[in-house]
Amino acid sequence: MVLGHESAGIIVEIGTAVTSLKAGDRVAMEPGVPCRYCRYCIEGKYNLCLNMKFAATPPYNGTLTKYYVLPEDFCHKLPENVSLEEGAVVEPLSVAVHACRKAGIKPSTSVVVFGAGPVGLLCAAVAKAFGASKIINVDIQQSRLDFALKYAATNTFLPSKDGNAIENAKAIIEQNDLGDGADYIIEASGAPSSVFTGIHVARPNATYVQVGCGNDVVEFPIIQMGCMELNVKGCFRYGPGDYNLAIGLLRDQKVSVKELITQMVSFKDAQKAFNDVKNGKGIKTIIKGVEVQ
Amino acid sequence: MVLGHESAGIIVEIGTAVTSLKAGDRVAMEPGVPCRYCRYCIEGKYNLCLNMKFAATPPYNGTLTKYYVLPEDFCHKLPENVSLEEGAVVEPLSVAVHACRKAGIKPSTSVVVFGAGPVGLLCAAVAKAFGASKIINVDIQQSRLDFALKYAATNTFLPSKDGNAIENAKAIIEQNDLGDGADYIIEASGAPSSVFTGIHVARPNATYVQVGCGNDVVEFPIIQMGCMELNVKGCFRYGPGDYNLAIGLLRDQKVSVKELITQMVSFKDAQKAFNDVKNGKGIKTIIKGVEVQ
Amino acid sequence: MVLGHESAGIIVEIGTAVTSLKAGDRVAMEPGVPCRYCRYCIEGKYNLCLNMKFAATPPYNGTLTKYYVLPEDFCHKLPENVSLEEGAVVEPLSVAVHACRKAGIKPSTSVVVFGAGPVGLLCAAVAKAFGASKIINVDIQQSRLDFALKYAATNTFLPSKDGNAIENAKAIIEQNDLGDGADYIIEASGAPSSVFTGIHVARPNATYVQVGCGNDVVEFPIIQMGCMELNVKGCFRYGPGDYNLAIGLLRDQKVSVKELITQMVSFKDAQKAFNDVKNGKGIKTIIKGVEVQ
Amino acid sequence: MVLGHESAGIIVEIGTAVTSLKAGDRVAMEPGVPCRYCRYCIEGKYNLCLNMKFAATPPYNGTLTKYYVLPEDFCHKLPENVSLEEGAVVEPLSVAVHACRKAGIKPSTSVVVFGAGPVGLLCAAVAKAFGASKIINVDIQQSRLDFALKYAATNTFLPSKDGNAIENAKAIIEQNDLGDGADYIIEASGAPSSVFTGIHVARPNATYVQVGCGNDVVEFPIIQMGCMELNVKGCFRYGPGDYNLAIGLLRDQKVSVKELITQMVSFKDAQKAFNDVKNGKGIKTIIKGVEVQ
Repeated sequence: MVLGHESAGIIVEIGTAVTSLKAGDRVAMEPGVPCRYCRYCIEGKYNLCLNMKFAATPPYNGTLTKYYVLPEDFCHKLPENVSLEEGAVVEPLSVAVHACRKAGIKPSTSVVVFGAGPVGLLCAAVAKAFGASKIINVDIQQSRLDFALKYAATNTFLPSKDGNAIENAKAIIEQNDLGDGADYIIEASGAPSSVFTGIHVARPNATYVQVGCGNDVVEFPIIQMGCMELNVKGCFRYGPGDYNLAIGLLRDQKVSVKELITQMVSFKDAQKAFNDVKNGKGIKTIIKGVEVQ
Repeated sequence: MVLGHESAGIIVEIGTAVTSLKAGDRVAMEPGVPCRYCRYCIEGKYNLCLNMKFAATPPYNGTLTKYYVLPEDFCHKLPENVSLEEGAVVEPLSVAVHACRKAGIKPSTSVVVFGAGPVGLLCAAVAKAFGASKIINVDIQQSRLDFALKYAATNTFLPSKDGNAIENAKAIIEQNDLGDGADYIIEASGAPSSVFTGIHVARPNATYVQVGCGNDVVEFPIIQMGCMELNVKGCFRYGPGDYNLAIGLLRDQKVSVKELITQMVSFKDAQKAFNDVKNGKGIKTIIKGVEVQ
Repeated sequence: MVLGHESAGIIVEIGTAVTSLKAGDRVAMEPGVPCRYCRYCIEGKYNLCLNMKFAATPPYNGTLTKYYVLPEDFCHKLPENVSLEEGAVVEPLSVAVHACRKAGIKPSTSVVVFGAGPVGLLCAAVAKAFGASKIINVDIQQSRLDFALKYAATNTFLPSKDGNAIENAKAIIEQNDLGDGADYIIEASGAPSSVFTGIHVARPNATYVQVGCGNDVVEFPIIQMGCMELNVKGCFRYGPGDYNLAIGLLRDQKVSVKELITQMVSFKDAQKAFNDVKNGKGIKTIIKGVEVQ
Repeated sequence: MVLGHESAGIIVEIGTAVTSLKAGDRVAMEPGVPCRYCRYCIEGKYNLCLNMKFAATPPYNGTLTKYYVLPEDFCHKLPENVSLEEGAVVEPLSVAVHACRKAGIKPSTSVVVFGAGPVGLLCAAVAKAFGASKIINVDIQQSRLDFALKYAATNTFLPSKDGNAIENAKAIIEQNDLGDGADYIIEASGAPSSVFTGIHVARPNATYVQVGCGNDVVEFPIIQMGCMELNVKGCFRYGPGDYNLAIGLLRDQKVSVKELITQMVSFKDAQKAFNDVKNGKGIKTIIKGVEVQ
């Protein structure tokens, strides 16, 4: 199967009905095309489409290919000040945008982001762009936290190994002067202990968004969730307006993704690039496509 | 400690500033009085008040007493067609009202209610009053389901003992023709297996409300919750307008609670009444207060 | 131009990709087909589609024809207990459903509906189905109010001719014991004086929905709207789920439209039927289509 | 009557139950104290309190006085980096915060603000802090627009005198590349022509917030509002969390109000200060209180 779902490209040819794009336009490519007919499409939640065709999700091939066909409205034109390389990062950035919109992050609030991998970092960056004033990245690798603090976080937290999940929650609250707890929690690690800590770090009526994918089933403090009247929200890919907003944040320089692009390789070195990422080397690697003549 | 938090009474005396009530008025007594000053009170979420004084919750005594002092706005006048006995049931009815409002139940929708105890039954009744067209009560006791079907449910489900939680979810969906799943899930049993089944019975983007209190920690299908973009909400007691709406539903005869009052005893038999309830006898027992002369 | 946009029909032929319908199925025909590609379609607001093709709205012909082509998802299957004639009334019923959903009508609330023509009557009926306990139809024709009171309204109001708009608002509030004012206002007359009275009949923070179309420009009490923090909402046709809910309300017998069908004529008498309606005779006239062999 | 409702001060004495403040603390003084008991207070909308005591609103005296008594939770502690003078401007800033929260302004959106007086300027500044990328101040005085452009607006518009309201709307849309229209409109001038233009400058489903107070009644394009499904919202003072957010924006340097303080006078020159403002001199004048010994 052809891999690839985080991509940008240059239009080489347009269909006869296309009006908003022309050959030569640089676009971020949204990799999932919904059916436009099912209930969720009609209701404006196309990420939940029952008949989604998503790049590199079987049986559909991905975007690591010379030519790729996409509907006009899933090709998102890049502004002049956004490069093709940044355009390829619009995909994970849109995941973060979707998560922060789901959370409903407002200015002058506190956000705890579990995980400081690409998505956790981008969630912190988008939370900052949304005006959050306290953004705490939590991770078990100090090197990731060091990067996070330089990138978007206002503070970081390294969970103590011998402390339990509730004690870690208390420590996050105390060290960051969060009072009754955090306003928003974005779980972008998938780690069971992060879910547990995340629920306990929340203030009454806070919103918790599950972005990370780890174990199918985790231990969950349901009484705490219930009595605090938390709002726990699932979060799946991205939907209406998310790509546009991601590109808008890049254009307006409210989010920067250049720091996350740690390597660029030519297509022939793609295999090596996958291995590097597998071994934890770098954050995002761009595989350059075959140049169109 | 004095017990009691589900009560109605007759006003015997009012303070000098009281304008909406007078001696002789029959009222449902809302048992939790918030501080009116903390963030949650100011924001209209007084059930999350940081300084709540709740009847029969230490250190505060309950309402099983001859005289009880309450602020004017927490004494809710009963309409002529609602008895004092029904007034005492406004408390658990308000729990159900709060849950159904949290869920946002709309007309012509499907609701699965886990549990057919008092709160589960009342949630089904309120869901019906809110216009839901499919209301399925789930319980492990057939006798409770028999009552539920006569009371408010349009259908019931007895989980198979050898089936697992996911298979039970599938069976609920199939037997009730729920298509992608249920629109709303109200978990009013607190049973860990109900939580698990509840998440799997939900359609994409459905709302799940946790009302029941059982184990502190349960196994939770977090990936299912995440990928379906479910909205999982904690639910704690009742807040602004819930008592009013509960009384309105009784007044308009959209909910009936008489069927739930299975016994009435005098105050001197209160001990026996508690034992009966403990032994699973009846649904709601009214303890009659000492008559005021 | 061919007229007609309130219609039901029988499927005679389906396309190869159609799975949910078959020849012989009876369906309510939703007359506006959106583009599925513009921003508003993608966001789940297809009634605001920038490229809508709406029956009998130039340059598109209407449904008063033997055969009519519609996409599968805009043909809404009728339940067994809903006739084709009722199916034709699903269109204006969906207008009322859209208005009441826009208003967000909740149980045990008060609704003032201006106008007691077809749409005003249906708004009252849907408000009742949504659980409103006080529903006041306002109209300048006593005969319409008489019908409204038998149909869905709990009360009616005939504006005094010599009273001004504000005095009429006060009278509506007093006669219906609305306290600070009505919870919801649905303006379905288009009359300038109704708009003015409607804003003044609202309680603080109430919701006002403009359904009626009359003068382009009206005198509007903007300070009253502002200081009461009213929510004034435009309302245009119907969108995702409205047809489904309208049919659900008919199926569940929460709304009845049979009373509104005051005449049925054959296609050859269509001209006379239009004239009758123009002259204010009856409420809804069904023009029977040419029987398909 | 004593005037004054935009004030900051230093705590000189606290009541016995006060825990969050002490003598010497510098606070922004929220001038309206609600009853905490009426429906709107309980529902978290205290700005709509039925029994509000608002400074300098008869029969209540204002804050231009040596000592002033306020409840603890309406004294908002100022961060170290916010001066008392800026603290006095928290009041109009909270009006702008309330308006932008009512509008629900999101990042990378367009906002047209009618009026470039103090409130219009502050609305533009808060819209910017909320992430709006196009902020257009509209005013009939070029000098105000010049200031607005230096302050927070990304663009300005001077309505043509001979153009009508609709033509002005078209010009605003074209000059600012707003496509279908603006995402948000904040009317902070109270001018009838601004209301009319504002409704026409809105894109389908946009939100329009009425902050300005001018004529009681204006000509209103109700069909345009209705068919575009606009959300028109009244906006009155400020409510839960608005003062906190206003102070947070100053603390985080996302909004600056120093530029608006064009004059500071001692209490004995207050009369002259009022006259200056009346004659259109300056933006905000601070009257210094009598020093406490």
